Amino acid sequence: MKDWKGINFKVIIKVIGFLLIIEGVFMFGALPFSLYYGEHESLSILYSGLITILTGGILWFSTRKHPKNIGRKEGYVIVAITWIIISLFGTLPFIISQTIPNFTDAFFETISGFTTTGATILTDIEAMPKGILFWRSMTHWIGGMGIIVFTVAILPILGIGGMQLYSAEMPGVTKDKLHPRITATAKRLWAIYMILTLAETIFLLIGGMSLFDALCHTFGTVATGGFSTHNASAAGFSAYNQYVIIVFMILAGTNFTLHYFALHGQLRKVWRNEEFRYFIYLILTGTLIITLVLAISKDGMSIEEAFRTSFFQVTSIITTTGYITDNYMLWPGMVWFLIVLMMFVGGMAGSTGGGIKVVRQLLLLKNSLLELKRLIHPQAIIPVRMNGKVVSQDIIFKVMAFFLIYIIIFLFGTTVMTLFGLDGATAIGAAAATIGNIGPGIGNVGPVDNYAFIPHGGKWFLSFLMLLGRLELFTVLILFSPAFWKK
Amino acid sequence: MKDWKGINFKVIIKVIGFLLIIEGVFMFGALPFSLYYGEHESLSILYSGLITILTGGILWFSTRKHPKNIGRKEGYVIVAITWIIISLFGTLPFIISQTIPNFTDAFFETISGFTTTGATILTDIEAMPKGILFWRSMTHWIGGMGIIVFTVAILPILGIGGMQLYSAEMPGVTKDKLHPRITATAKRLWAIYMILTLAETIFLLIGGMSLFDALCHTFGTVATGGFSTHNASAAGFSAYNQYVIIVFMILAGTNFTLHYFALHGQLRKVWRNEEFRYFIYLILTGTLIITLVLAISKDGMSIEEAFRTSFFQVTSIITTTGYITDNYMLWPGMVWFLIVLMMFVGGMAGSTGGGIKVVRQLLLLKNSLLELKRLIHPQAIIPVRMNGKVVSQDIIFKVMAFFLIYIIIFLFGTTVMTLFGLDGATAIGAAAATIGNIGPGIGNVGPVDNYAFIPHGGKWFLSFLMLLGRLELFTVLILFSPAFWKK
Repeated sequence: MKDWKGINFKVIIKVIGFLLIIEGVFMFGALPFSLYYGEHESLSILYSGLITILTGGILWFSTRKHPKNIGRKEGYVIVAITWIIISLFGTLPFIISQTIPNFTDAFFETISGFTTTGATILTDIEAMPKGILFWRSMTHWIGGMGIIVFTVAILPILGIGGMQLYSAEMPGVTKDKLHPRITATAKRLWAIYMILTLAETIFLLIGGMSLFDALCHTFGTVATGGFSTHNASAAGFSAYNQYVIIVFMILAGTNFTLHYFALHGQLRKVWRNEEFRYFIYLILTGTLIITLVLAISKDGMSIEEAFRTSFFQVTSIITTTGYITDNYMLWPGMVWFLIVLMMFVGGMAGSTGGGIKVVRQLLLLKNSLLELKRLIHPQAIIPVRMNGKVVSQDIIFKVMAFFLIYIIIFLFGTTVMTLFGLDGATAIGAAAATIGNIGPGIGNVGPVDNYAFIPHGGKWFLSFLMLLGRLELFTVLILFSPAFWKK
Repeated sequence: MKDWKGINFKVIIKVIGFLLIIEGVFMFGALPFSLYYGEHESLSILYSGLITILTGGILWFSTRKHPKNIGRKEGYVIVAITWIIISLFGTLPFIISQTIPNFTDAFFETISGFTTTGATILTDIEAMPKGILFWRSMTHWIGGMGIIVFTVAILPILGIGGMQLYSAEMPGVTKDKLHPRITATAKRLWAIYMILTLAETIFLLIGGMSLFDALCHTFGTVATGGFSTHNASAAGFSAYNQYVIIVFMILAGTNFTLHYFALHGQLRKVWRNEEFRYFIYLILTGTLIITLVLAISKDGMSIEEAFRTSFFQVTSIITTTGYITDNYMLWPGMVWFLIVLMMFVGGMAGSTGGGIKVVRQLLLLKNSLLELKRLIHPQAIIPVRMNGKVVSQDIIFKVMAFFLIYIIIFLFGTTVMTLFGLDGATAIGAAAATIGNIGPGIGNVGPVDNYAFIPHGGKWFLSFLMLLGRLELFTVLILFSPAFWKK
């Protein structure tokens, strides 16, 4: 098995062992709250952590192969398998404590956490022990940390697709590399992640939130996850705390490279970034339209409330966070459809946000407009420009292919969900909200609903969609290609 | 005005004059039935024809410029304006006879006819005079004839986008040109159109249909239009007649070049055509799935009836015809969504069918699958092949751009329709059914509904979508580009 189909599995086992040890250590992070609230589930958390660390240790020491020699193929396998195995072990606290006794439900909830989706099968969140809820929110935070490393730091180290893939996935970052040495880059990104986490926690504490709630909602925000500790999500929070969450959802959906620039005082560089401006314009335009509609159509809602409600929902959906302060299913038809459209935007590339990503949308939009110009001047070469630089046709081609495959998978996913007996709107909502790592969809998986009623087969399928979306489709799809397994 | 913005308007006026004369002559075609059934509307038809011919004659003789010197820009303007002006004059029989007294409604109905869409604002079709209904169905037939000439014969004559545009629009035809001389090609295509028309009429007459019904439904079928003379569309027809319509919908949705090959005994060439096989597989797969679901879910429906019902609806939607024998809105959720997906297929390139077209779908699907292979072998050049030949990346690029712009316009159209107060499903249905030139959509514009209730502004917007879809988007969109109007 050492080199089955040209893939070095020993290296893969070593890396996964290492990651499981880290996951186990993180599990202990939920212990203080469990003990503080005197919950008997603290023992389940302790056992889960020990089992995970032990398994990781066995895997790590089972081979002496140093993970430095990771090839492209091993890289692909590691990335896809990691998210699955981490999620498998992540179910332990739920299963051992019997708070989510069913394995399918526990897996759905955990992978929803690690993929920063935030779709839940819990019908009564407030009935859950606090220690378990803290672990649930931590899966977001760990997932967000993982995705930052995956997209910006690990992908190039592993050489997955090299710069060629990398450039297609994240054009915003290629041109303006943070630092030539990737490990240093990863550390800087994590520092930013920590700063965002610390800052939001403090701001929420100032707003009168308990440390437990502040931390859980910070984890859900900076990872653009969306798990809440309240059944009403963020609806019961004060206006101040809602604004804090809005600001940090935007920050979490922003390319982390821009945070680095901002922290170094290069604010002009931030504002000159076309993807960032488009991202902000999208949020503001959506907010304005919906504010107007809500102010007119909802009796008794003040302008400030209408503004805050629309600002919150628009930001939450575009950044793929999924926190909710109002049931948008009850909004007038025209803004409801805008919300559905926003499910296909996603955060900026290089953020913790999921979805198609703003930069891809922007490139496709620019290219579509230029296509008309190309028809008028068939002899001229009219390239797409981003931040003043020409984007190669090869990248546009790959972005188009990504978009199309995203749409094909979304449509396929919707069809599959109708086969599980879901009605049209619910099927569309479930597929869009999982592949986009958003959480709440439309229909019966709308903002005030949950995924509990979906048949087990459907939950496994949606888990797969979350993984696909989170890993930018290709990283997972490539494993299904027969050509990949040829030596 | 002779050469405003570098565009020779005299040539445009000359061509439109010529086309109006032809339209007026066609209007007289509705006279025999009007007279036979002793309807007093025959006078309205006579006046309409005379007014149209007279206007056309004045335009034709107002300039001596010979239309041989038509440039690319004039070509674009002529194509877009022609469909609008022909539709304007096409409203005359409805308005003069006061059968559709409102101008907006009459224009919607007429452009729906000429674009072979088949969306109707009539709430009681059977209450209309036969002569008027005959003209209504003739708009389909003329439109279908126009689209064959537009896509296969006129585009290259006018030099619109040259082979470069042409190849992007119709890759199926480029490689296997019917005949080097385009005018001869156009005549052959019309001959095929006439043969199809004659054959279906005879088959329907054999099935016991009246000459009036047989002709009207033949016009609606061979043009993939969908206007019926019955309120129940094709639901009341005998099984034999329904099968006849199914077969001719498939023939009308097939590339006319293949008919030419078939008539010359080159059947192997037809079956070797990948687009054709994919088209047939799509119809058969859809039919099989829905037959199964209907046979299981609908009590009292025989297997034959389930097969015929699903075969009819699948063929009607994929070929963008729009005839109906059953209300698919009442089918189980999973097949209902399949129907929605089929609205985005369309006929083959070079047929009278609308929509995205089968060849584009096939190219995009192939390219998406190959994209994975390209990731595994980043150094290798892996081109898309169609009918054994390499398709240039430039064509794939243009097909992708077309698809994206189609989706953008569909989403924009849906948003606009929600602004007119339509609910989400109806807005989606109206936009998809008009831009795809299908006719029936979902929601309140479903198979047993009509477009009468939509506000006037919405009807004008949907008329625009029909035109956009029928003229392959770019031909119309280019006129909105400032660059087009620069000298």
